[in-house]
Amino acid sequence: MNPRDWNTRANDRAARLARAERALAERGTPLAGKRVDAAAIGTLLEAVLEPGDRVCLEGNNQKQADFLADALVALDPARVHHLHMVQSVLALPQHLDVFENGIASKLDFSFSGPQGARIARLASAGRIEIGAIHTYLELFSRYFIDLTPRVALIAAQAADAEGNLYTGPNTEDTPAIVEATAFSGGIVIAQVNEMVDGRSTPLPRVDIPAGWVSFVVQAPRPHFIEPLFTRDPAQISEIQVLMAMMAIKGIYAGYGVQRLNHGIGFDTAAIELLLPTYGESLGLKGKIARHWALNPHPALIPAIEAGWVESVHSFGSELGMEDYIRARSDVFFTGPDGSLRSHRAFCQAAGHYACDLFIGSTLQIDLHGNSSTATLGRIAGFGGAPNMGADARGRRHASAAWLQAGREARAGRSGAAGTPRGQKLVVQMVETFREHMQPAFVERLDAWTLQEQTGMDLPPIMIYGEDVTHILTEEGIANLLLCRTDEEREQAIRGVAGYTAVGLARDRRAVENLRDRGVIRRPQDLGIDPREATRNLLAARSMRDLVRASGGLYQPPRRFRNW
Amino acid sequence: MNPRDWNTRANDRAARLARAERALAERGTPLAGKRVDAAAIGTLLEAVLEPGDRVCLEGNNQKQADFLADALVALDPARVHHLHMVQSVLALPQHLDVFENGIASKLDFSFSGPQGARIARLASAGRIEIGAIHTYLELFSRYFIDLTPRVALIAAQAADAEGNLYTGPNTEDTPAIVEATAFSGGIVIAQVNEMVDGRSTPLPRVDIPAGWVSFVVQAPRPHFIEPLFTRDPAQISEIQVLMAMMAIKGIYAGYGVQRLNHGIGFDTAAIELLLPTYGESLGLKGKIARHWALNPHPALIPAIEAGWVESVHSFGSELGMEDYIRARSDVFFTGPDGSLRSHRAFCQAAGHYACDLFIGSTLQIDLHGNSSTATLGRIAGFGGAPNMGADARGRRHASAAWLQAGREARAGRSGAAGTPRGQKLVVQMVETFREHMQPAFVERLDAWTLQEQTGMDLPPIMIYGEDVTHILTEEGIANLLLCRTDEEREQAIRGVAGYTAVGLARDRRAVENLRDRGVIRRPQDLGIDPREATRNLLAARSMRDLVRASGGLYQPPRRFRNW
Repeated sequence: MNPRDWNTRANDRAARLARAERALAERGTPLAGKRVDAAAIGTLLEAVLEPGDRVCLEGNNQKQADFLADALVALDPARVHHLHMVQSVLALPQHLDVFENGIASKLDFSFSGPQGARIARLASAGRIEIGAIHTYLELFSRYFIDLTPRVALIAAQAADAEGNLYTGPNTEDTPAIVEATAFSGGIVIAQVNEMVDGRSTPLPRVDIPAGWVSFVVQAPRPHFIEPLFTRDPAQISEIQVLMAMMAIKGIYAGYGVQRLNHGIGFDTAAIELLLPTYGESLGLKGKIARHWALNPHPALIPAIEAGWVESVHSFGSELGMEDYIRARSDVFFTGPDGSLRSHRAFCQAAGHYACDLFIGSTLQIDLHGNSSTATLGRIAGFGGAPNMGADARGRRHASAAWLQAGREARAGRSGAAGTPRGQKLVVQMVETFREHMQPAFVERLDAWTLQEQTGMDLPPIMIYGEDVTHILTEEGIANLLLCRTDEEREQAIRGVAGYTAVGLARDRRAVENLRDRGVIRRPQDLGIDPREATRNLLAARSMRDLVRASGGLYQPPRRFRNW
Repeated sequence: MNPRDWNTRANDRAARLARAERALAERGTPLAGKRVDAAAIGTLLEAVLEPGDRVCLEGNNQKQADFLADALVALDPARVHHLHMVQSVLALPQHLDVFENGIASKLDFSFSGPQGARIARLASAGRIEIGAIHTYLELFSRYFIDLTPRVALIAAQAADAEGNLYTGPNTEDTPAIVEATAFSGGIVIAQVNEMVDGRSTPLPRVDIPAGWVSFVVQAPRPHFIEPLFTRDPAQISEIQVLMAMMAIKGIYAGYGVQRLNHGIGFDTAAIELLLPTYGESLGLKGKIARHWALNPHPALIPAIEAGWVESVHSFGSELGMEDYIRARSDVFFTGPDGSLRSHRAFCQAAGHYACDLFIGSTLQIDLHGNSSTATLGRIAGFGGAPNMGADARGRRHASAAWLQAGREARAGRSGAAGTPRGQKLVVQMVETFREHMQPAFVERLDAWTLQEQTGMDLPPIMIYGEDVTHILTEEGIANLLLCRTDEEREQAIRGVAGYTAVGLARDRRAVENLRDRGVIRRPQDLGIDPREATRNLLAARSMRDLVRASGGLYQPPRRFRNW
């Protein structure tokens, strides 16, 4: 019997690299170090890819390896097929074109955003086999266990002649992808916006060492990047102001929340914009919201300028915030070049283990408190919310907020459930009716139907009722930590569900009883006069105000400007 | 009013770097690039440290920045004092000497191992203010939120003239520490075993880019490193063989566990050594235990050689395993230099989110299933177990094992608790009596007394009863997932607690009823004949056997050899 070869992956990498070198030379565009001519990208990909390969095409929340995506789509499916794509975000049409044209067949991902409807169509047509839908950190984790990429196609700002990479402010997923691939006999191909020689012009900083990178190609145009985290204050409604007041006074102040993550949306933008006005009037500066795991939200600028924010660690960056971040290096994690060092994997870990509160929005909440953004005919994915919006049961360090939430959850319980333990605050903030008068509260989540339609193992629930601690609507706050039975929980939810069918079906006596116990609190119970909830309370009421607050450092993308 | 300075940290770093340069020049040992003369280390530290600084002195599970620790201890406490140490492991006496001599006063950490008794003494004498005790990933997470180091003192294998670092197989905590420090205006000082010029002799690979490192010093002797994960098969008892058989047949096979983490100990070493013998005889190869988040345990060598193990991602490395790892690069994550790339932060994330099972041991288990390794007079910390031994509530991808555990936990429940969801398998594997006939099962954990003594916010529980799914003793397996009341859970635990007082106080009828329902399973219920549980089943019965199984590639440290 021949002895087993235990280094097949390393040998296979060497063979693929040699194949690429040969193919590029034959094409008349030989490798220059690790540098590949952009016109030869198809040749490179055909040389290094094999049918069935597990491939990570860097699709982040923001930056996109779009040149490499185009090149992948253009390959001959007779030669490259059945790829198994493992990438966090499907943002570009190309991300699905590879399934439509037969290049790829299997998909493990986290979030699909605008491509959700097309994924659902392709899946039901049998063109995509979906492995699973993950929260971000979970997908990165699997890169090191059972979904290790064989080939990673990534994006960076610049490379030097050796192949060191500078990601600029949008480092995002890159370190996790590259580390898993490079140290497992895989191949890393980076598209970059610019090349520097590295000696007379060094990179502004090195984010990824050259030794981890196999090939570099300068793309003919800068990689695509999406400003996902910008919300125009002009679109914040007075109902959102009211809800933000309740969040600040009823939850942030009530628990003394110092470390937190905000989901993106106008609701949470309203909270950010009320900190230096309403929050200040309550004397909360320095007492709440000091440390953030957050992309650099422009709506946070007034709070930063007013001295509320001590630190922000970021998953990714946000277009237009570059100069502002550079000028506020005490607050943001930046490199010696002055630009942000984001890192989605570490920031998700921080959101999970070092934050006391997650607050976000959802589309539907059921009577158990389960919530979901799944809608029929769309497979939208989870992104980061399940990780941030789950009780971090492995956490062992205490904070006042975490201890108080734990005490409320466990008071009067016995056995294992009564053992003292902290708990993460997980807040769902929703208006009772969404746009087109769709109720946010439902008897049954669409997620159940979607599960039936797609044959998923479980309904795609974003945040489980067992993990959510508060539901906040314009009608009030339901504190689910204090509920002791299924019935109480149901009435607490009905009790803040307003004029939705779920809300109207409340047991009025039970709800009043919950209010007496402080399980439900109305604005007036919190000492909030809804008439004071006006847009005048917002520290910025327009994009222009945000620019002004930043001293002109924030430069919003054109689409957000009307001046 | 003067405008606020928003770049104080960056300016402060520049000032400290300038101070260091000046002081080293005045001492007659000027900086050579980033390189500092080892004899000048005290001058460097006095120049860059300020009272009250948050300092990470790299204490890993294995490698130790011991030269820098010595230098820190030797500083003048009149000049450097009140440091706040934030480091994962306190392994060396120097880690506590800094508190004893007044250099440091506050401590946030994860694990203290052999220093646990001394920490307790220093804490009760008021010499250490303990911030909190963390699980590893949680502490790394706080580095990015509210425990960011100002100065990091780290250890690597080699540096080049520019300051690029090669960590070799023990990368461990280094990436998380350095990233948090370098990108927040902090200072990174690395001790290295050797220097290379980087041009004629390049580093074997770059683990940390030079731009993230402020100073490099070649230590007069290689950094200390501890072989913590080596267990001599000769010390495995037949009771441990029996328990390992139950684990494999009753749990790994029962749930089809493919991805897992083993705590370190003779119990789990026995499982590793039974896979290619007992596991093979059950036809389980390829069906269980394929992917691991694990340090390179020597006891895993026979299973690897027999083709059981597809991949291992590691927190750190293990002394003596270097050549074996190099020759098995299909299994381990390795660099182009052939040596392991470990990474504790990513491996802990993988253990949390990409593994279906954690199995470990403990010192005490109470009637609720809470377990703890805390003993009176010792503050030992948590390490990685709380993270791996907690249900990962943010997880959304399914596996057969996870779904089955979730179904068992939720069958017949209603409301939020009845919503279908997977669950992580968390197994506590203990003999009913530990050494010196101490019972592993107790009415009350010592953790409660320790909490009272030290004024901790919560008792130091390692794994909560709510998270543990199975308790495995020589008497049988208690499946807590199937318990529906506090009383059932208590009897299930008593029912495997053997001749301990807790076990003797069982309600025999209740226990028999639980056995009928499959909540408790004895060896014979699993089709295991205890008489077959002999050491002959172990694939290696000595260190020498392990060396032989490795084809001579494994080279155990001297203390593990008796030949």
